[in-house]
Amino acid sequence: MRMAELSAESGVPVATIKYYLREGLVPAGELTSPNQAQYQARHLQRLKLVRALLDIGGLSIVDAREVVRAIDEKAATHELLGAAQHGLFVRGEEVDDEGRAWAMGHIEKIAEQRQWMVQADDLYVKSLVSLLCTLRDLGQERLIDIFPQYAESADAIAQVDLEAIGDLPTPEVMVESAVIGTVLGDAVFIVLRRLAQQHASRKMFGTGDEEPSA
Amino acid sequence: MRMAELSAESGVPVATIKYYLREGLVPAGELTSPNQAQYQARHLQRLKLVRALLDIGGLSIVDAREVVRAIDEKAATHELLGAAQHGLFVRGEEVDDEGRAWAMGHIEKIAEQRQWMVQADDLYVKSLVSLLCTLRDLGQERLIDIFPQYAESADAIAQVDLEAIGDLPTPEVMVESAVIGTVLGDAVFIVLRRLAQQHASRKMFGTGDEEPSA
Repeated sequence: MRMAELSAESGVPVATIKYYLREGLVPAGELTSPNQAQYQARHLQRLKLVRALLDIGGLSIVDAREVVRAIDEKAATHELLGAAQHGLFVRGEEVDDEGRAWAMGHIEKIAEQRQWMVQADDLYVKSLVSLLCTLRDLGQERLIDIFPQYAESADAIAQVDLEAIGDLPTPEVMVESAVIGTVLGDAVFIVLRRLAQQHASRKMFGTGDEEPSA
Repeated sequence: MRMAELSAESGVPVATIKYYLREGLVPAGELTSPNQAQYQARHLQRLKLVRALLDIGGLSIVDAREVVRAIDEKAATHELLGAAQHGLFVRGEEVDDEGRAWAMGHIEKIAEQRQWMVQADDLYVKSLVSLLCTLRDLGQERLIDIFPQYAESADAIAQVDLEAIGDLPTPEVMVESAVIGTVLGDAVFIVLRRLAQQHASRKMFGTGDEEPSA
C-alpha cells in the first residue's frame, strides 16, 4: 500500500508517519519510484505498536526506538524484557551515599526474600533507590514496609507473564508479545490496582450500600 | 522562611516555585510586606509532593492540581484514591460499539470473579476498555487471558495499601499518604515487576550461571 493508504488504515497522519520513518521507529517502505514507496502489513503492525508505546506506554521517542530495535535484533528474551522504559524513574536528582546505603538495605532484604539477584548498578535497582529516597523525603517511610508484599505480587505476575510468552511459535512473535505485554501490561495493572483500591476502600470506609463512584 | 530559602531547602528553582504558586499547586505564603511572603514547613512539604507527582508520578499540571485539591479538601478516602492519574490511559481514540461490548465482556468477568462493582462510565473501566481494544488491535488478545491473575494480584496489593493508610492518625495524613502511595506505589510496583521478570526470565531462558544483566 502507499503512504496515504497506510495513513488511512492506521489513523496516523502522513506527517506523523514521516516523522516516525525519520526517527527510525518504522522501517522504510520499498521504493517503487524515486518518490514513491510501498508499505506492507508489517509496516501497519509496526505503526500500531509505535502508537501504543508512545501513547499508552508513555515512552519517549528514544525509549520507543530502543524497544523497536530490540524487537528487530531479536534480543535475548531476558534482555528484551528490560528494554522498555529503561531509566523511566531515574531522575537527575542526586541520592547521597547515606540515602543509597539505606535504600539498598531495604532492596537487598526484599531481593533475598524473593531470591532475586540485584546489583547496585542495575537501572531498575537505581530507580528503586531513587523512589525509596523520595518516599523517605516525603515522610512516607512507612509505605516501604508494604513493598515486600508488592514484590511477592510482582513475582506472581512475572511468572504468569513469562508463561504467556514462553510457548509462542517464533522468537519475533515472542519478543513483540513480551514488549507489548510489559508496556501495556503496566497500564493494565495500574488500572486494575485502582479498581481493586476502590473495592477495598468501599469495604473499609464506605457504608456498603452507596452507589459506586463514577 | 523566604522564597529564596524555600528554594534552597527544596532544591526547586525560584522561577519554578513561582510557576507552581500561579498554577495553584502550592499555597500562597503569608505576606509580611507588599512584595515579601513567608513560607512554612507545610509549603516545603507541599513542594516536595508536587515534585514527586510531576517528576516521578509523571502527572500533568492539571492532574497534579486535582490531587492537591483532593488533599486540601480532605476528600473522602475512597474518592481520593481515584483522584490521581484520572484519565491517564484514556486516549482520544474512538472505540467502536463492537469493541466496547467485547472488552466489557472480559472486564465484567474479571469484576465478577473479584466481586468488584464496575460501571461502563467509570474512568478506569473506560481506560481498561481502551487498553483491551489496543491489545486486540495489536494481535495480542491472548495476553488478555492473564489479566484475571493480574486482578488477583491487584486485589492483594490494594488490601495491603488500604491497611497501610487505615491506621494513620489524621485525615490529612491519611489522604496525603494515600496519594503518594498510589502514585509512587505504581512506579515502585512497575520496577519490582521488571526485577521479577528478569528473575523469572533467567530461570526460564537463561543458562543459570550467567552474570546478572546490568
